[in-house]
Amino acid sequence: MSVAEPKTESVEIERKFLLRALPDLAPLKAGDVAQGYLTSATDSVEMRVRRKGCGADAAHFMTLKSDGSLSRKEIEVPISAAQFNSFWPATKGRRVEKTRYVGTLSDGLRFELDIFHGGLDGLKLVEVEFASVEAASRFVAPDWFGEDVTGNKGYKNKSLAVNGLP
Amino acid sequence: MSVAEPKTESVEIERKFLLRALPDLAPLKAGDVAQGYLTSATDSVEMRVRRKGCGADAAHFMTLKSDGSLSRKEIEVPISAAQFNSFWPATKGRRVEKTRYVGTLSDGLRFELDIFHGGLDGLKLVEVEFASVEAASRFVAPDWFGEDVTGNKGYKNKSLAVNGLP
Repeated sequence: MSVAEPKTESVEIERKFLLRALPDLAPLKAGDVAQGYLTSATDSVEMRVRRKGCGADAAHFMTLKSDGSLSRKEIEVPISAAQFNSFWPATKGRRVEKTRYVGTLSDGLRFELDIFHGGLDGLKLVEVEFASVEAASRFVAPDWFGEDVTGNKGYKNKSLAVNGLP
Repeated sequence: MSVAEPKTESVEIERKFLLRALPDLAPLKAGDVAQGYLTSATDSVEMRVRRKGCGADAAHFMTLKSDGSLSRKEIEVPISAAQFNSFWPATKGRRVEKTRYVGTLSDGLRFELDIFHGGLDGLKLVEVEFASVEAASRFVAPDWFGEDVTGNKGYKNKSLAVNGLP
């Protein structure tokens, strides 16, 4: 969810950036994320399966997003590894695989740094979430942040999954 | 799957009829079926959730159908009652609820008689499956069968769910 496109239901106010340089990854909490879409970009609903973590510690989810005229519904349901594995092959060509690093900036703001793999290998994005639009506007990015791509739909997960790199 | 529309992957050869009269239901095996669609009729894939049976004996499934250019893929995955209940509200307006009675005709052919509920209350359909197109063609329906609606897409479950009675 970007600042440029506020949605009535969401409380997430985020800004998204490319990277100029990698920060020190060692102190960050890291986790693998694999997500794939069962629906096409033009379908009326979005069905996604996602694996967070790896091996026996992995958690799996299925998410349905639908755009109502008045509200955007999202239903996220935990699924088993077996269920995930059954549906995963049907996401071929519509996947995002990345390692997510979570850390804190010097001003206390939490950031999520995604390093992509597979077809998106080489892409790195960092997101910062804010408590208010005002806080998002006055944010001064650290020098390891690159171009601000907050309003660029090509960097949304779904677009990356379907269309590849912008 | 109707005789009129053979699909390469399917081996189901069925004919579907309205009912002229109800047969004796007492000797038939009965079970409730509730199914609903998470996707719209025009979406590129079909996602369905289904509950068979009721109470603690109910079984729940999620099915993904996709139309490839060469083959039609179908993935059916058992889901829990909790998972079914999470997704079921999102099928509102796209549901079929029915009691299915299974029995055998005097010539040994198995039939499935569906008595619909909810918005389709009053509809009754019977399906017979055949081993070959020839067997389907020479089938003589019992006198309690009504109009043959095999080729009528309006009587497919998905159409009934989305469009209601034809």
